[in-house]
Amino acid sequence: MYSSFAVGMNFIINFILGFCAGCKLFTYLKTFTAMINVAGRRRIVINNVMPSVEGGRYPAKTIVNQPLRLSANIFADGHELIECVALIKHKTDKLWVTLPLLPEGNDVWATTFIPDRLGMYQLLVQAWIDHFGTWQHGLVKKFNAGQDIDTEIKNGLLIAEQAAAKAVGKNKIPIADWIEELRSATGHSEAVAIATNVEIGLLLAKSRDKALITTSHITPEIEVERERALFSTWYELFPRSAAAAEGTHGSFKDMLRLLPRISRMGFDVLYLPPIHPIGELKRKGRNNSLTAAEGDHGSPWAIGTKEGGHKALHPELGTIDDFKLLINTAQQAGIEIAMDIAFQCAPDHPYVAEHPEWFKWRADGTVQYAENPPKRYEDILPFNFETEAWQSLWVELRSIMEYWIERGIEIFRVDNPHTKSFMFWEWAIREIKTKYPRIIFLAEAFTRPRVMEQLAKLGFTQSYTYFTWRNTRRELEDYITELTTSELKYYFRPNLWPNTPDILPPELTTGGENNHIIRLLLAATLSSSYGIYGPVYEMCLREPIQGKEEYIDNEKYQVWQWDWDTWTKTGEIAERINRVRKENPALQTTNNIQFAATDNDNIICYIKADESRRNVLIIVVNLDPFNTQNAVVNLPLQAIGKEPGERYQVEDLLSGDIFEWTGAHNYVSLNPYELPAHILRIQQPQ
Amino acid sequence: MYSSFAVGMNFIINFILGFCAGCKLFTYLKTFTAMINVAGRRRIVINNVMPSVEGGRYPAKTIVNQPLRLSANIFADGHELIECVALIKHKTDKLWVTLPLLPEGNDVWATTFIPDRLGMYQLLVQAWIDHFGTWQHGLVKKFNAGQDIDTEIKNGLLIAEQAAAKAVGKNKIPIADWIEELRSATGHSEAVAIATNVEIGLLLAKSRDKALITTSHITPEIEVERERALFSTWYELFPRSAAAAEGTHGSFKDMLRLLPRISRMGFDVLYLPPIHPIGELKRKGRNNSLTAAEGDHGSPWAIGTKEGGHKALHPELGTIDDFKLLINTAQQAGIEIAMDIAFQCAPDHPYVAEHPEWFKWRADGTVQYAENPPKRYEDILPFNFETEAWQSLWVELRSIMEYWIERGIEIFRVDNPHTKSFMFWEWAIREIKTKYPRIIFLAEAFTRPRVMEQLAKLGFTQSYTYFTWRNTRRELEDYITELTTSELKYYFRPNLWPNTPDILPPELTTGGENNHIIRLLLAATLSSSYGIYGPVYEMCLREPIQGKEEYIDNEKYQVWQWDWDTWTKTGEIAERINRVRKENPALQTTNNIQFAATDNDNIICYIKADESRRNVLIIVVNLDPFNTQNAVVNLPLQAIGKEPGERYQVEDLLSGDIFEWTGAHNYVSLNPYELPAHILRIQQPQ
Repeated sequence: MYSSFAVGMNFIINFILGFCAGCKLFTYLKTFTAMINVAGRRRIVINNVMPSVEGGRYPAKTIVNQPLRLSANIFADGHELIECVALIKHKTDKLWVTLPLLPEGNDVWATTFIPDRLGMYQLLVQAWIDHFGTWQHGLVKKFNAGQDIDTEIKNGLLIAEQAAAKAVGKNKIPIADWIEELRSATGHSEAVAIATNVEIGLLLAKSRDKALITTSHITPEIEVERERALFSTWYELFPRSAAAAEGTHGSFKDMLRLLPRISRMGFDVLYLPPIHPIGELKRKGRNNSLTAAEGDHGSPWAIGTKEGGHKALHPELGTIDDFKLLINTAQQAGIEIAMDIAFQCAPDHPYVAEHPEWFKWRADGTVQYAENPPKRYEDILPFNFETEAWQSLWVELRSIMEYWIERGIEIFRVDNPHTKSFMFWEWAIREIKTKYPRIIFLAEAFTRPRVMEQLAKLGFTQSYTYFTWRNTRRELEDYITELTTSELKYYFRPNLWPNTPDILPPELTTGGENNHIIRLLLAATLSSSYGIYGPVYEMCLREPIQGKEEYIDNEKYQVWQWDWDTWTKTGEIAERINRVRKENPALQTTNNIQFAATDNDNIICYIKADESRRNVLIIVVNLDPFNTQNAVVNLPLQAIGKEPGERYQVEDLLSGDIFEWTGAHNYVSLNPYELPAHILRIQQPQ
Repeated sequence: MYSSFAVGMNFIINFILGFCAGCKLFTYLKTFTAMINVAGRRRIVINNVMPSVEGGRYPAKTIVNQPLRLSANIFADGHELIECVALIKHKTDKLWVTLPLLPEGNDVWATTFIPDRLGMYQLLVQAWIDHFGTWQHGLVKKFNAGQDIDTEIKNGLLIAEQAAAKAVGKNKIPIADWIEELRSATGHSEAVAIATNVEIGLLLAKSRDKALITTSHITPEIEVERERALFSTWYELFPRSAAAAEGTHGSFKDMLRLLPRISRMGFDVLYLPPIHPIGELKRKGRNNSLTAAEGDHGSPWAIGTKEGGHKALHPELGTIDDFKLLINTAQQAGIEIAMDIAFQCAPDHPYVAEHPEWFKWRADGTVQYAENPPKRYEDILPFNFETEAWQSLWVELRSIMEYWIERGIEIFRVDNPHTKSFMFWEWAIREIKTKYPRIIFLAEAFTRPRVMEQLAKLGFTQSYTYFTWRNTRRELEDYITELTTSELKYYFRPNLWPNTPDILPPELTTGGENNHIIRLLLAATLSSSYGIYGPVYEMCLREPIQGKEEYIDNEKYQVWQWDWDTWTKTGEIAERINRVRKENPALQTTNNIQFAATDNDNIICYIKADESRRNVLIIVVNLDPFNTQNAVVNLPLQAIGKEPGERYQVEDLLSGDIFEWTGAHNYVSLNPYELPAHILRIQQPQ
């Protein structure tokens, strides 16, 4: 362990140098600094410290109790041996844990660390020249080459004597003993044996000259989150449509009845669109019409009436006690309630009167509504994040999240975060997570790539993705490969949704039930987190508004009733694949995917294997919802742990069928009217 | 122009935030800072500022009077228009030049800048929301959609009135005039015309709220060097072998006679191995034997005797005046003399007695020689860069380079820089280049990739490469693609050498004269800088020491005589290709290469085009030194600026032949006993 003080000092020196190197405004200061402090004697270069995002500007992400690879490129001039360590600590700790890094070739040094607590960790890398080890190593080589090693032995004694002079306390004596022993060795052979004693190397390391240690110039943060941050299965449901009786507004109480069904289907996150009072001014009618008819319920995303805003509940849904009961009952069924965070107001939200300074005002004395000219969203008032009162706005918005956290919510699905200030999210998420490290934030942003990436960098736990529109084999392979192999893998956790209340992709409309099943199976196996906008998806409802990718008679603007006793084929498949996900660790993480070639572009194939490589799945999906497709897949043998020509059994976890496969090339045939996919587990020897 | 003070203030604020974001030690400080300063109102994100190396830690490189692309990813939340600028200045200037950045899609904003001075430039990027432009844009859309725009016009007046209140001096009046004009407009059509006046937008921009401007968190440096940093043609020659008469030690005077020949061949850098007094103690004999025979001249890299060290000249080569005459005469012939910097000492170098503190001492009272156990290099003493006297060592080593710069040298080839301290090079090169920006440093490091990259990051102008051992089409394509498309393209300038006094690659031994010509043509066209260890290469001498990749009877350890009147085929081809390089701008830069497919792995094909795309070359090389090879090349039509099926003439710049080609697919046949390559220039319409 290093004391945090020593590291702190190193850090400050490195920081000064790093700052000079980084900003380049002060070359002369740098030269001056370099010439007066000790850094000029250091000979090690450390770069590419991983995991890190944008060179340490943003935290990398991992989950608790999961092995985490730490690595860096480390090298010195010349041929001497070097020693490298990673220093890691939870941000709230004082002491750093030191882990030796091992060389992997090509100047990469790495180790594995298993964080056991939630929250922010910090990573440093240090390295130094191992002079004594270099001497030991050289001595043996010279001795083996038959060279005279008298002077060499004396050189080693010199190093040890210098170390002994610096050594403190009980370390002094064994060094002196070793010096004595080496001096009195009879013959080179005995001397070499004494010289290469491992203990003495460890002892001398303790009196190493700290001034020669190089410390990485960045200190990446690594955020450790709970398992559900990486492995989660979402079901979206409008609570107002939960009633059994036709024409009745559903409530939290009605939802209690649905929990066993959702639990049986294997979903563990139940996401509710906003549950706050719905604005009455400028309320939208059915199918997004500009005026609400008598009795229209409006969009839950138009939040706030005189009855309350983001901290209140829509009266027809129930009381705060009803809501708490729902949270607790769900929890007992293994389901977490995810709440919607939509930071915007209906025109009658109390904030408008109480905090006019948080809004933009129009010349006619009304508040500026959301717009993307010529489109207007008059039922929605955005906050003005450029207001001079931004501090009070930020604090209030944070308090909304804290309010619901204190009432049992631990997952937020954030509505359109890309239309709110990035700096606000960076601050707010860090504030919340420092206090409540279990909280999960899902960013509902379907926007440009750089913007989606930025939200994930700022702290969002999971992100919606372009999967919704990636249909062909090439599109899926390219997109998932980018997410799982570029820098994105360190900070962007994809949550794949085949549909949402906002999006009915054309492929679902044209591909019918078969394509609902195909897209469900892809979402559930291409990423460890996925979700469906549930009842509509189970029923395969797929009629769009003419010319749009949007459901007709959308629940966003009206109350529906669902037949919760019906089990469709899509629902049955969801239940099956969710069970498979729970039973197979290979499906509980995302970056462990490797695509395999197939000779038919309608058939996609990929391998998922867990860390232990005991759980290896071969997933094959027919992307054509209309026709049986056949293919020969060409499996990467290393990924499945098989030899060319080796025979092995695979079990289809969907159908229960067992197949005998051989080596890399195997034939598949998939009928989309039966089962469009194989989820094949390689049978392990007992 | 922004004043450097304003930028400085922005910089400091960003720096504080950047520091907090970067080091993460002070989250609370950051929160505090964010909550008390103005940064919370900023809504723009800027990242990926280019060119930059390691996120701005090291300078990017370019050459003077060459267009340089500046770019960044820039975006805001929401839909408003943004404006982005690059601020660039020479480090010694006070004022920043402001260049508008233009959107290229996908949130990339870019422009081109042509630096006109040598030295270090600094780059910043700034961006802000264009509220007034957004209003103008929205007004037009609403008007076109037939919406009522009365309130909209008033909104715009509001923005202008606020700006007018802030405006100073002569800006006030035209804003007030415009407000008056818009107020009194008759009808929407006229109002829109007045509102979208461009002048008013520019005027209002001047009173923009500076607190809302976001500045990039990094300030990359860009080093602007002279043209030869990128385009250079090297010839290596041992001056002691320059004498005409058999058995005579050559001299600087002898070399005067060779300059017209080297100039005629088109080489513009003449690199001399060390020219200092050669150590007598432990001097090596011929073929690297441990003991020198009477009359053996030793290795020029074992520098220093009692007659002097790195600032002295080897007496048999001549006086300082002879050397200056050589430098000047060469310059008149268009040739620069490149000097060798080998920071190491022979045992009798004066430094050993004068500065014992700069060396490591062995227990037997001798200085530690260079070694890589069990190998010993007893004629070479390395400096101890871990010495506590490192400051005086650094200053002295810098003074060696300054000494020769003051005597007319502007190019250094640095011997084994990877066995000296990286921190020293970073400091020394920056010191030298700040004072003498014309100096070019070539790093002679044939070592591991990360080490070679690091030297280039630290400031070396050019680098030796693995080209020497890259022979197959795949090897060449992969390596050159890596150098010219990864981050390396910003800082690593490859200088390709088919041979050196240290390296006789097996392919040259087995491939004979034909392969000497093939490798020469590849080196001369794959990179804008290349070199040969000359006389040996021209003569195609290729006998190795048994089992080694090294020339027998190496000039490193003995004096040779050469027949300088002989012109070999290799020499003739060198002359031809060097003339082609001088006449074709496409060959004067490196990153402009694009490989083309061929249907024969023995034939490699690549396109080089200059910035204007007037000079477009198609280079086709037969990599097989023994057989005629034929291929159909498949040219990327966009790269050559042709349509499918289009007919065009290409002129072979080596043979003078003209060919009629059509579209992408064209047939080539190359006989290595005649000419193994086509250098085809696409004929441009007159």
